[in-house]
Amino acid sequence: MSGFSTEVIDLRAAREALWETAPLVHCLTNTVVQALTANALLAVGAAPAMVDAPQEAGDFAAVASAVLVNVGTVHERTAEAMRLAARSAGKAGTPWVLDPVAVGALAYRTALAAELVELRPTVVRGNASEVMALAGAGAGGRGVDSTAGADDAGRAAVELALRTGGVVAVSGEVDLLTDGQRTVRVGGGSVLLTRTTGAGCALGALVAAYLAVTDDPLLGAVAAHAHVALAAERAARTAAGPGTFAPAWLDALDAVDGETLATADVRLTA
Amino acid sequence: MSGFSTEVIDLRAAREALWETAPLVHCLTNTVVQALTANALLAVGAAPAMVDAPQEAGDFAAVASAVLVNVGTVHERTAEAMRLAARSAGKAGTPWVLDPVAVGALAYRTALAAELVELRPTVVRGNASEVMALAGAGAGGRGVDSTAGADDAGRAAVELALRTGGVVAVSGEVDLLTDGQRTVRVGGGSVLLTRTTGAGCALGALVAAYLAVTDDPLLGAVAAHAHVALAAERAARTAAGPGTFAPAWLDALDAVDGETLATADVRLTA
Amino acid sequence: MSGFSTEVIDLRAAREALWETAPLVHCLTNTVVQALTANALLAVGAAPAMVDAPQEAGDFAAVASAVLVNVGTVHERTAEAMRLAARSAGKAGTPWVLDPVAVGALAYRTALAAELVELRPTVVRGNASEVMALAGAGAGGRGVDSTAGADDAGRAAVELALRTGGVVAVSGEVDLLTDGQRTVRVGGGSVLLTRTTGAGCALGALVAAYLAVTDDPLLGAVAAHAHVALAAERAARTAAGPGTFAPAWLDALDAVDGETLATADVRLTA
Repeated sequence: MSGFSTEVIDLRAAREALWETAPLVHCLTNTVVQALTANALLAVGAAPAMVDAPQEAGDFAAVASAVLVNVGTVHERTAEAMRLAARSAGKAGTPWVLDPVAVGALAYRTALAAELVELRPTVVRGNASEVMALAGAGAGGRGVDSTAGADDAGRAAVELALRTGGVVAVSGEVDLLTDGQRTVRVGGGSVLLTRTTGAGCALGALVAAYLAVTDDPLLGAVAAHAHVALAAERAARTAAGPGTFAPAWLDALDAVDGETLATADVRLTA
Repeated sequence: MSGFSTEVIDLRAAREALWETAPLVHCLTNTVVQALTANALLAVGAAPAMVDAPQEAGDFAAVASAVLVNVGTVHERTAEAMRLAARSAGKAGTPWVLDPVAVGALAYRTALAAELVELRPTVVRGNASEVMALAGAGAGGRGVDSTAGADDAGRAAVELALRTGGVVAVSGEVDLLTDGQRTVRVGGGSVLLTRTTGAGCALGALVAAYLAVTDDPLLGAVAAHAHVALAAERAARTAAGPGTFAPAWLDALDAVDGETLATADVRLTA
Repeated sequence: MSGFSTEVIDLRAAREALWETAPLVHCLTNTVVQALTANALLAVGAAPAMVDAPQEAGDFAAVASAVLVNVGTVHERTAEAMRLAARSAGKAGTPWVLDPVAVGALAYRTALAAELVELRPTVVRGNASEVMALAGAGAGGRGVDSTAGADDAGRAAVELALRTGGVVAVSGEVDLLTDGQRTVRVGGGSVLLTRTTGAGCALGALVAAYLAVTDDPLLGAVAAHAHVALAAERAARTAAGPGTFAPAWLDALDAVDGETLATADVRLTA
């Protein structure tokens, strides 16, 4: 369990550091999920800023605490802003997350994501189809849903992590995260997360927030996944359906403190 | 009542087919309502995907189960994506819905909508002003609100349906839907729908979802309108105001099953 | 207290005029907050319309009751639409609001906002950093959050108001509003407003709505701030966290009537 023998304490410390630091997370993300993403960041104590004009994205990424690049509704202008932000983050040593929404299913964004991967994102977060497509291991899904399980993508995740030198996180019933050496599984969560548009995209933003307050990108990514899963379980207990789940989940993101986060279902498996 | 003598069974079957099939609905819609639209689709059991880059829209429309084109915040790039998606859907025989938001009030989108109508949408869904403007029968409203009643637009709807060879649905206190031969009225609903931004736009997406699982476009459009109306009545009973109505409505969209849908206020009137 | 000796009656009358008139508010605003903004306008009884294509923005601003220009996610196309809308509103004598989100922190939008200020917005609404940057009095904040207090910006607000001939409103723990001659403070509210993305942006839209129904821009701006603050207090009493606060706040925006608004913490201080 080397690297995670102290995981309980680390998760607690990460959560507390998030409250104390309130990192500024620069999000270049799709227009469907911008509001939920910003609210999720505010709920955990981070400060969101959505800046996706090519005239501003590079400069802003350089001063942000962390950057999220999500290609969900990407087009020519925002693709250019993403390139500039990713390069700027890399140059400044700022951690950044790539969320390759629907990569594999659509040629334009698949080419863009391949280009962004070369800029070595600190974390890639996606579902199994997306990660496999990005690793060149699969033909991709039918859109934003994954058609493969998280475990199927385990090998592809390790390969991709070794290629980027960063972390790859695969969302599924059980999440799988790896830095190429260590592999961690995060359980829990709720099926209602899959019925809330943007929950996965917001998770990508929370990964970015945690990267800003932890030295170990794998720990940061794990903390974000555990935070989302625990909040989802809590929200599922009070929600009357998929509509009331979303506000309850934001309430729960706020309510999950360091002590609670330390109880998450996190297992080092390799 | 030919064509609707079995309407109770049909509505139930349509609802159940939606759950079983989980159709992929490709939405090119306005940025104000993307999140509510995606959540409404998820709530009824469909799979939303918002793809509006010209580089991707045509290819994606060809593989989607149904397509929604909503011109609410259209501009040059998205107009081009809409043209490509509509043409691609037509070529592939994929059903598609045109929602002519504020057409008649603004010249740019009115010209675009006239162009899209020539591509023969399976369903046009709008309010009375929009449908009348599209049919060339009126001068249009003052924006997104309708300034005419659904019944006033009845004649325009029939004319437009005969022109497109499809269905025209006019939202109002009582909704009116026609394929040029048969005219159906759907009652019920709640005034709170008019105080929730994007409820009408989400209805357009649900029409697309139902088109993917029914052979009769009029039945598909009626099922979507009935589903929205029943869910609104249910949500209005628990909501404390227009803000809590929206999540309650999503919960209710999920909760309305085939048996419930079969109780909708649906009348064949011509 | 000249100009505000009758403030209680004026606030009540403004609220009632809003319900009766249902002004059409044309919003050119950022994509993160469009849905909340539209829902807030609907909740208070106004009619929102988001139109930001250059082909339409000028024409639409001329027929709207009021216009909001918010530069939160501005880029080349929407900047052009904003210029056209602001010029058109000015020409038509239509009141318009400028919300200089993150101005001071980013060069591109700072230049745009400086240009828009020359077109003399009826009201500028921002936080202390933004107002100070716009007045040339500060170096700006780190993004969308203010790093200065509302009172620090008081002098800058007066200077800016004298320059535009309009009103400047500075949001903070206590809001400060001035037309260069009179200065008003509005207290109350809830910290949960700062944890809801777009609450400040929605306030800008409500200012526009109130401008459409009052002759005195300072009174209109004060009414909107008081309305938002009272609704926030009410919502904070029932919300379980930052997620359930947003729908409760929309409910409360609807519930605050003229009598309630007249109880707001509004003080003429200069």
